[in-house]
Amino acid sequence: MSKIDLSLDEEKTLATTCLSANGCNAENADAVADVITAAERDGCPSHGLFRLPGYVAALRSGKVHGAASPRVERVAPGVLRVDGGGGFAPLALARGRQPLIDTAREQGVAAMALVNIHHFAALWTEVEPLAEAGLCALACTAYLPAMAPAGGREALFGTNPMAFGWPRKAGPPMVFDQASAAMARGEVMIAARDGHELPPGVGLDAEGRPTTDPGEVLKGVMLPFGGHKGSAIAMMVELLAAGLLGERFSFEAAAQDNKDGGPPRGGEFMLAMDPTCFGDEAWLDHTEKFFEKMASIEGVRLPGARRHAKRKQTPSDGVQVPAELHDKIVGLAQA
Amino acid sequence: MSKIDLSLDEEKTLATTCLSANGCNAENADAVADVITAAERDGCPSHGLFRLPGYVAALRSGKVHGAASPRVERVAPGVLRVDGGGGFAPLALARGRQPLIDTAREQGVAAMALVNIHHFAALWTEVEPLAEAGLCALACTAYLPAMAPAGGREALFGTNPMAFGWPRKAGPPMVFDQASAAMARGEVMIAARDGHELPPGVGLDAEGRPTTDPGEVLKGVMLPFGGHKGSAIAMMVELLAAGLLGERFSFEAAAQDNKDGGPPRGGEFMLAMDPTCFGDEAWLDHTEKFFEKMASIEGVRLPGARRHAKRKQTPSDGVQVPAELHDKIVGLAQA
Repeated sequence: MSKIDLSLDEEKTLATTCLSANGCNAENADAVADVITAAERDGCPSHGLFRLPGYVAALRSGKVHGAASPRVERVAPGVLRVDGGGGFAPLALARGRQPLIDTAREQGVAAMALVNIHHFAALWTEVEPLAEAGLCALACTAYLPAMAPAGGREALFGTNPMAFGWPRKAGPPMVFDQASAAMARGEVMIAARDGHELPPGVGLDAEGRPTTDPGEVLKGVMLPFGGHKGSAIAMMVELLAAGLLGERFSFEAAAQDNKDGGPPRGGEFMLAMDPTCFGDEAWLDHTEKFFEKMASIEGVRLPGARRHAKRKQTPSDGVQVPAELHDKIVGLAQA
Repeated sequence: MSKIDLSLDEEKTLATTCLSANGCNAENADAVADVITAAERDGCPSHGLFRLPGYVAALRSGKVHGAASPRVERVAPGVLRVDGGGGFAPLALARGRQPLIDTAREQGVAAMALVNIHHFAALWTEVEPLAEAGLCALACTAYLPAMAPAGGREALFGTNPMAFGWPRKAGPPMVFDQASAAMARGEVMIAARDGHELPPGVGLDAEGRPTTDPGEVLKGVMLPFGGHKGSAIAMMVELLAAGLLGERFSFEAAAQDNKDGGPPRGGEFMLAMDPTCFGDEAWLDHTEKFFEKMASIEGVRLPGARRHAKRKQTPSDGVQVPAELHDKIVGLAQA
């Protein structure tokens, strides 16, 4: 597959230009391009430029408002509610970030309910800034039904990612970000595009039979990681991101979505806690000992280590974009 | 295996008598006996009378204070800290419960840090009363190293259970309670006692080789559910129950424990949120639709359904206790 080499600046300019040409105002284009660029920078192409055609489709169909202006409201002492105004999630997240940090520091714990947004990005970009601000942070969001609850053959849950971040004394925070599915839907899409086979246990085909063909899984149903325990995590994500916030469960989002290929309307739940409010002044040194112990075990890698390594390399290596995707985006930017 | 039939009252009296005879004051004996009885009532013997010899061992060795008087303090607007005074967890939890409910209702979200406790029970008994009070609730706790992080062969994490509860319109709340291990350590202990083989993937033997022999797994190391994703959940539990609270990580608990067979000193993290503070008045009807949809899928069961069914049966069926365990407890109560 032929690739185009871009610098990180060129990559971001390409994304921004394409979004602006399709109806995003400057603030929204910049916020979305930021998360796409972070994904490319950290070696996560499934949430990078690969998503841009979907963003554009949602703008062109009129489902998503490219000039949305999210509003942040404090609805309880420990709860912020951000109405995204029907736009993409990144600007809503950017506007809510500092208020969430401030509220967590004041209260010890704070929750943020993001509603009326369209979420199409990776969650680790969202918890990382909170952990950089010294907070323990969690985020989760539902999507469109893609995954059967354990025991079933019918899609109910989205792939329902959950991310968790914890501050480190030096370097980037520890952050994990994982779909509740055995594999992220974006990875299954990439495997289908590149003609790769899936490991067993990722999904069922349209008739409910196990398959390792990513194309068949995309037509059928994915499975949760770890059987009924992963299924319970996926259910918890639905309850937090939709039930608690009063937004659409994945099955409701599907019923109301226009199926333009872009992200449906949905909600996102975030939680931030300030360890300094919990009573242990030495918390940061203490948790470093834990991370050191964990990293010292042969064969074990701390979550995020691969991303952090790639991040250091990208400024010199640049970003490699499949030529077909690059051409498609250039075309979308000119339309 | 011969069994003794007890009514639920007889079972609780047996537990209370045994705890009192070994140094628990009335309040602590009652609180511990309550959680043991709830486990027997709901058909979870691995957290029932089976644990009593461990409780007694910890009292007899002097590790746990049977007359501990836990203190609840509000350390930040949204954070409660309960110092368990070196006693068993149940009384600390009982004293913190109403303050946690009140704080969550006032703030929208509240966290509770339980420290200086010895936890040996099931978490679902702890989130259920919060969900019955109309709150969304989460609890997790670390323990003693029993599980290797994904990729490793050395125990670092406890089996690190996490429980989550959500209110229902009618009947008991939806509650799941799951170890981060492929199987709960209590279940592995029961399998070893009863001579049952384990399914593959539960653990490694002392040499780091996969095995289905529960006795070998107890000498070796257990594995997280769902590979690196379950491993990340187990790590999150360590960070919440030990890192955030300033209590002992599982590996620290092991280094300081006297190995009397009873529960080590550790911490527990709880979170409670009041959905009425998040902005959707119809949240309960909305989430019922989700549960109905989920339960309508062929082959799918809501978490906790088996417990709730058993709970209805127990008042007439009573509790069946292995004769050997019953005799042991009677002996411990007389010593």
